[in-house]
Amino acid sequence: MLAKTPEPPYWTVIFTSLRTSDNVGYAAMAESMEQLARQQDGFLGLDSARDGVGITVSYWRDPAAIEAWRNNIEHRIARQLGRERWYEAYELRVAKVERAYGWTKPA
Amino acid sequence: MLAKTPEPPYWTVIFTSLRTSDNVGYAAMAESMEQLARQQDGFLGLDSARDGVGITVSYWRDPAAIEAWRNNIEHRIARQLGRERWYEAYELRVAKVERAYGWTKPA
Repeated sequence: MLAKTPEPPYWTVIFTSLRTSDNVGYAAMAESMEQLARQQDGFLGLDSARDGVGITVSYWRDPAAIEAWRNNIEHRIARQLGRERWYEAYELRVAKVERAYGWTKPA
Repeated sequence: MLAKTPEPPYWTVIFTSLRTSDNVGYAAMAESMEQLARQQDGFLGLDSARDGVGITVSYWRDPAAIEAWRNNIEHRIARQLGRERWYEAYELRVAKVERAYGWTKPA
């Protein structure tokens, strides 16, 4: 349920957003883009949640993998539709993961 | 509604989690820790959402600010209670934000 990633360093894209009230086509496009992202070379994982604010954090091998995904033509079209229809505002941050730590409750 | 942050570089802590079914005291503690984080030197902002997976992304001036918050005694106690009661699993990632971009729908 939580994305599992290799040892750092790797990279992350943090996408936070506020939606418009236009839901037409949004869920299908979001699902489609997540599936497409998972197929990209250098994709490592993804966590996503929305309650008011939406947060999608994706993990990538290196900046070149992020750049290739940014230039993917289907992704470009989806982003254009997003600005026209589904998003009121968003912030996108690209960061290099330097340290990571996981914990799971003992059985 | 979305955290606004200064120009990069700055740092971020990405905390993803799965909750247990024990809700006693959780919401109050989460709110208390968010308010306490906002008072820390070097705190820049925070985005949070939960729907199944919980994601809290906080933004910080530098690694020293993150380290000071990690060592805050109230925060330490909250983390201990979190492991005992409220979290099934979590992942914590510390990353340096290198690039950022925001967009708001034109009026």
